[in-house]
Amino acid sequence: MSKVDAELETLCRTLASQAKAASRALALADSETKNAWLTGAAEALEARRAELLEANARDVEAAPGLGLNAAAIDRLTLNDKRIADMAKSLLEIAALPDPVGETISTNRRPNGLEVAQVRVPLGVIFMIYESRPNVTVDAGAICVKSGNAVILRGGKEALHSNQALHRILADELKRRGLPEHGVQLVPTTDRAAVGQLLALPELIDLAIPRGGEGLIRRVVAEAKMPVMKHYQGICSVYVDKAADPEMATRIILNAKTQRPGVCNAAETLLVHREIAKTWLPKAAEALRSAGVELRGDESARSLAPGMNPAAPEDWNTEFLDKILAVKVVDAIDDAVEHIAQHGSAHTDTIVTGDPSAAEKFVAEVDSSAVAVNASTRFNDGGELGMGAEIGISTDKYHARGPCGLRELTSTKWIIRGEGQIRE
Amino acid sequence: MSKVDAELETLCRTLASQAKAASRALALADSETKNAWLTGAAEALEARRAELLEANARDVEAAPGLGLNAAAIDRLTLNDKRIADMAKSLLEIAALPDPVGETISTNRRPNGLEVAQVRVPLGVIFMIYESRPNVTVDAGAICVKSGNAVILRGGKEALHSNQALHRILADELKRRGLPEHGVQLVPTTDRAAVGQLLALPELIDLAIPRGGEGLIRRVVAEAKMPVMKHYQGICSVYVDKAADPEMATRIILNAKTQRPGVCNAAETLLVHREIAKTWLPKAAEALRSAGVELRGDESARSLAPGMNPAAPEDWNTEFLDKILAVKVVDAIDDAVEHIAQHGSAHTDTIVTGDPSAAEKFVAEVDSSAVAVNASTRFNDGGELGMGAEIGISTDKYHARGPCGLRELTSTKWIIRGEGQIRE
Repeated sequence: MSKVDAELETLCRTLASQAKAASRALALADSETKNAWLTGAAEALEARRAELLEANARDVEAAPGLGLNAAAIDRLTLNDKRIADMAKSLLEIAALPDPVGETISTNRRPNGLEVAQVRVPLGVIFMIYESRPNVTVDAGAICVKSGNAVILRGGKEALHSNQALHRILADELKRRGLPEHGVQLVPTTDRAAVGQLLALPELIDLAIPRGGEGLIRRVVAEAKMPVMKHYQGICSVYVDKAADPEMATRIILNAKTQRPGVCNAAETLLVHREIAKTWLPKAAEALRSAGVELRGDESARSLAPGMNPAAPEDWNTEFLDKILAVKVVDAIDDAVEHIAQHGSAHTDTIVTGDPSAAEKFVAEVDSSAVAVNASTRFNDGGELGMGAEIGISTDKYHARGPCGLRELTSTKWIIRGEGQIRE
Repeated sequence: MSKVDAELETLCRTLASQAKAASRALALADSETKNAWLTGAAEALEARRAELLEANARDVEAAPGLGLNAAAIDRLTLNDKRIADMAKSLLEIAALPDPVGETISTNRRPNGLEVAQVRVPLGVIFMIYESRPNVTVDAGAICVKSGNAVILRGGKEALHSNQALHRILADELKRRGLPEHGVQLVPTTDRAAVGQLLALPELIDLAIPRGGEGLIRRVVAEAKMPVMKHYQGICSVYVDKAADPEMATRIILNAKTQRPGVCNAAETLLVHREIAKTWLPKAAEALRSAGVELRGDESARSLAPGMNPAAPEDWNTEFLDKILAVKVVDAIDDAVEHIAQHGSAHTDTIVTGDPSAAEKFVAEVDSSAVAVNASTRFNDGGELGMGAEIGISTDKYHARGPCGLRELTSTKWIIRGEGQIRE
């Protein structure tokens, strides 16, 4: 191993060991102290605004040289409104119930043992992200509120902004008597640090990658610990023969166009043949007026001329853009089967006035969220009433769907006796 | 790839695809049908006893040639009593509540959406085990009752017994109109089949290895899907200064000797210095009378002469035998720290009459089960009131502690609306 490699390994192991030690203290921290940290950090974000804007200006200045386009530079840029939004998010997380210590079940055994299952933090979370600086604040807040220590690894384009935000969070941890290593930022932009940290399952309990599919696949390939993730959001809207046509148009328009670049936007429209004849031409017109390119199968194209032909890979593609694949199906079973074969188990919607079709779809579509007569865009922690979310999982092991505070916890069994032994 | 490799890969992919298809049907099966299958299989075990005993006799006959010792051959051997026990276990699983479809939470959003989180099966489970033929029946029953398909891979020493048991389970699935591929047995003893199946995360949702640490580490290294597991049970009993001495002796004797070869047996005894002087000599005598070899630190040896010296690796060893490492500690904090450094997060017990010491231990020891005044041997699905268990997990992601029916499920979010779109 070269000297540089050995130094990086030492650095990463130190970061992770410090996080592990901090996690043991954070697991025992009471809700009041954690909430005081959150409100204190919200105040500090406002009080230290100049420091934040200055650091952010350095990132924004360097951004064109790193190849960022205008949209990416906009996402990177902090201003008074965005700082106020980060502070507001901290206060919202402070107001959420603390999952740690919750008793999930209790039972008294015939031999007199009192058995309880209680909620405990996961431990140390490693968060890898590419996106906007507010993720630094949100992820730090969600992890600490759920009793976990976190190691943050943001994109190099936001390094100075993230460092300034991290300083505020860590300073406030110290001020509240909480371990300052409860929130750490990887202090190097060396890509190899990610691989080093992902190789430490004895110190890090969970990795959470947020970004493009390429980033997530790299993290999954390298991680020796569990990864909370979804690869893609290939979400479908199925318009049943018993759909209210106006509602169907409203829902597909919202699901496709309200924010086309996010994971819970629709990518596929499935239409029952019986309603397609009358509904599809109008819906196609509305979608095209909203700037959506339609790619249809043969039936869809014959009913609503002007669509491009759908290629086989279009059914498996997360466009993240104003493009929609459109298919006519003969029965609800065909819609369910299409979703099983081509969907990504993220979010799927049925539009129908027929309760038995709705229940069939809900039972048979095996996705993290299944909606009836509502937009796919509702698969989101805030929209489902969980408060903040740290990501959405399409896996089945551990949490599935939007992941908030509770999803960053585990459980512990507590057995209270009076000397019982096993016979 | 050689022709043999390609054939094995095709075989494994076929098994897994059949399991996936079966899992979709099993996820929708109602409790009555699943329970009828369980009771039918219990009857068939008795009715087809001759077939079972004949198949088992072939395994037992070949066992010495495979190097099995007398204890292993005993574990392999079926008889009327053991067949009746397997049938009884099926009836017990039939009597347990069905977790599938349970509504975990509901909430009505301000926009009128009705949000529910419901329990769904994981999908396909791959179970790899070395032990007794009854695992074939138990694992098949637990997986199907929780709505999952299972692929079973038992040890080659039990192949004929497992094939006969599998035939009974699969025949009964067909008879009840359930998919016969809901329970499959890997039809080859080729070790490479395990690696092939572990490389199919798109078809298999969870791997569960049960056996020695070597087997579990191999499975974790190769698996591309989550693994439900524990590597070791290095369980401690801490005797606090406020312990009832008689209770402490009863508990450590039970924890160490009732079944020394299992994961929830105690391997380490930690004793507070204040009680060690009077209690340890008597406890040591009782343990030695029960055939236990004691390996003590310097203080323990000076208080209770006749112990062997503990080597550093003894604190990190799962003896699975009548051997106990003994250490004197100056304070409860030292006991907690010892467990954090050397334990395996499986099960740890405090014996104390002091409620504040008990609560401190319960809060600070981060193991899958923590007991107060009770034997470590109680970390077991049956003993904690969960009914059957498929294993014990020391991981924090997903289930932790004994894993029963509910731990083989995931959740799905269901969103019911009247045309709501996201603003």
